[in-house]
Amino acid sequence: MKIPPVKGTRDFYPEDMAIHNWIVDGWKRASIRNGFEEYDGPIFEYLQMYQIKSGEEIVEQLFSFKDRGDRDLAIRPEITPTLARMVNQRINALPKPIKWFSVPRLCRAERPQKGRLREFFQWNIDIIGEDSVLADAEVIFTAVDYLREIGLAPKDIKVKISSRKLLAAVMKKIGVPDEKINPLYTLLDKKSKLPADVFSTTLIEQVGDTLSKQIIAFMNAQTITSIGNIVNPEGDDQLASAIKELEDCACRLGQMGISDYCIFDPGIVRGLAYYTGIVFEIHDIQGDLRAICGGGRFDNLLHDFGGPKISATGMGMGDCVLEILLRERDLLDKKIPARTLDYYVLALSDELLDEAVKLTAQLRTLGFKSAFTYKAGGLSKQLKLASEQNARFCIIIGDEFKSGDIVVKDMSAGQQKTVPLKVFLVNLEKL
Amino acid sequence: MKIPPVKGTRDFYPEDMAIHNWIVDGWKRASIRNGFEEYDGPIFEYLQMYQIKSGEEIVEQLFSFKDRGDRDLAIRPEITPTLARMVNQRINALPKPIKWFSVPRLCRAERPQKGRLREFFQWNIDIIGEDSVLADAEVIFTAVDYLREIGLAPKDIKVKISSRKLLAAVMKKIGVPDEKINPLYTLLDKKSKLPADVFSTTLIEQVGDTLSKQIIAFMNAQTITSIGNIVNPEGDDQLASAIKELEDCACRLGQMGISDYCIFDPGIVRGLAYYTGIVFEIHDIQGDLRAICGGGRFDNLLHDFGGPKISATGMGMGDCVLEILLRERDLLDKKIPARTLDYYVLALSDELLDEAVKLTAQLRTLGFKSAFTYKAGGLSKQLKLASEQNARFCIIIGDEFKSGDIVVKDMSAGQQKTVPLKVFLVNLEKL
Repeated sequence: MKIPPVKGTRDFYPEDMAIHNWIVDGWKRASIRNGFEEYDGPIFEYLQMYQIKSGEEIVEQLFSFKDRGDRDLAIRPEITPTLARMVNQRINALPKPIKWFSVPRLCRAERPQKGRLREFFQWNIDIIGEDSVLADAEVIFTAVDYLREIGLAPKDIKVKISSRKLLAAVMKKIGVPDEKINPLYTLLDKKSKLPADVFSTTLIEQVGDTLSKQIIAFMNAQTITSIGNIVNPEGDDQLASAIKELEDCACRLGQMGISDYCIFDPGIVRGLAYYTGIVFEIHDIQGDLRAICGGGRFDNLLHDFGGPKISATGMGMGDCVLEILLRERDLLDKKIPARTLDYYVLALSDELLDEAVKLTAQLRTLGFKSAFTYKAGGLSKQLKLASEQNARFCIIIGDEFKSGDIVVKDMSAGQQKTVPLKVFLVNLEKL
Repeated sequence: MKIPPVKGTRDFYPEDMAIHNWIVDGWKRASIRNGFEEYDGPIFEYLQMYQIKSGEEIVEQLFSFKDRGDRDLAIRPEITPTLARMVNQRINALPKPIKWFSVPRLCRAERPQKGRLREFFQWNIDIIGEDSVLADAEVIFTAVDYLREIGLAPKDIKVKISSRKLLAAVMKKIGVPDEKINPLYTLLDKKSKLPADVFSTTLIEQVGDTLSKQIIAFMNAQTITSIGNIVNPEGDDQLASAIKELEDCACRLGQMGISDYCIFDPGIVRGLAYYTGIVFEIHDIQGDLRAICGGGRFDNLLHDFGGPKISATGMGMGDCVLEILLRERDLLDKKIPARTLDYYVLALSDELLDEAVKLTAQLRTLGFKSAFTYKAGGLSKQLKLASEQNARFCIIIGDEFKSGDIVVKDMSAGQQKTVPLKVFLVNLEKL
């Protein structure tokens, strides 16, 4: 009875797991050095949790099911609703700002394609309870801090920054009717994925010729200051404050030393319904990969989940696109630590196998990564096994053991010496 | 809109996550020093995967669902079927014995109770392709190696060892009819959980008076050698070899130095249908907790999943019972590392906040765990924030900065000194 894996899922064989662990460990290290604390939640929640504020795309892609109590549940497609629930549950007890990170396993029922699987891992960091743009900048810095550490330079990736508040203010200012805003955002979010003519035709259909031109002019703005030439912020508090926030953010990113990674790009909209302020995505410059990372401010989410009005900003970075990018840039394989052993203990006869088992157990108890042979026998075959497992030392239990001696072979230097077992053990315990 | 978490799941707030990580890190360290390599599989598989060989209880407790392609899927309730699938997929390429470990997140739709939740984590280690009892002993050693490391002594826990092969041979020898074997195993597995009179009444109902007495005599045997007095192994190859395996296993456990943790207990049956040889459970001696860990040999499983006939042995240890036990023995809280920061950078005025942000970004880039204040202001309030986050050093940016100096305060010693920022940074980079 042979059953295949489900399409869009991954098997992590030890060599894949080593890559996965290297990515996750890097995420965790970067989070901790930037002052974030780790949390996690359940793999499933009530279905409703994901119907409140997630983007349309996410709601369509839920793995939902009923439990035996006829409750509607869903495997988590994102962790932000869980974060909102957990923070709301303890809102008064938690010191602010709350700086948390997580590396959840997430599932979305979408068609598997390059960089998109039905099951994936996502690094999430969030700052809750800090209104200032400094928090948005810190989220961006933390993402860049990680990506820079693993070898991605400004020539490889760019953080594209915009603002949902700016977008909303501009749309209002130029006169886009309220009821057209939501479908318009969905279209604008897809701009970079659509052919230019399809985009502009659809845009004209939605809002007409005049508005289309203004929207395209806005979407193509190269600098924050040029926004003022497209729409006049005078007397429009929301527009002026959105521009000011973007300027402050750019200034903070400069203080943090990562300006060369960052550009203003009003084409960044972000699909999720809950963003309210600065939004950003990190993209590979050369390729046509999906975003490596995306995030922004979501000041209403905790309130939408029954909590107080409290500001929040954060980001998510998936493992699939990141791994493809690192592989394309040849930044992956040479960084993955190889499996190693401190000691491989082999025996040249069956009765000596007992001693190999005994010694290995002692070595393991002392904390050394060790393995024994399962079958006593020829030296060269066993040395091969030791070298396949990258053993630093091989301990050979052979004829010398009659007088209590073992042979310790340094596998990289190729040298070996005969020592009494007792002496060997005493020296080990001193380490 | 306030939505609660699903009953039987856990929220891991940072303080819970610290405990969870400490447990998981210990499992991983013990696995690696005992020569196991990490793997993982998808959180869901085809439903059928869990209907082939899992115990009846597990099949009843599946979280199953249909995807959009009308495929029947289930969240994994155990990882062994995935292991069998993955090994079978690469059976020829993988060097034997295969020694793998994993720490899967698992879900079972059961009634939440002490030590049993609907979502939990389980440490799994398996050795595939090694027939000898040495592999069974190594699995037991690895589990004990971990439990001993975290402070559990022979006075706290016992490894209770038996053999499904022995059980089958004894039942055959005393004349239990084939068709009664499976319901009988289910009953025997529950012996320790049932009142003695309920157990014996049910047993008599199932197999009659004479067989009951023999079965109870066997289940109460204290030593491997005493089995020979209850049923005569002469001329019965299966029985003799089952006894020999148990003796060899005890001998290996002695060589490994953990005899004081281990006892023979024919009452150990294990619910899962796939065990074929030595089986074991690790129990808390004092309490009435469920098993901390259980495992054994399952030589047919890979074949049942469409692979070759190849031997396998392994174990699983869940996080829920373990955590309860460690808490009861007061072995938990003092071992969990506290959150710390290397540097907390504070500013005494708004314009100096820019410098605090700049310096913190530099410190983080150099790899130091650091945080800045979000609001410049009074010294004592900010020092309190630093101390809440267990900062080793506090850097105060105040009036001295006019001449390029900062104040570095050692938070535990309470001492502070004024140094030029440049000198401070040069010394840091040298570290």
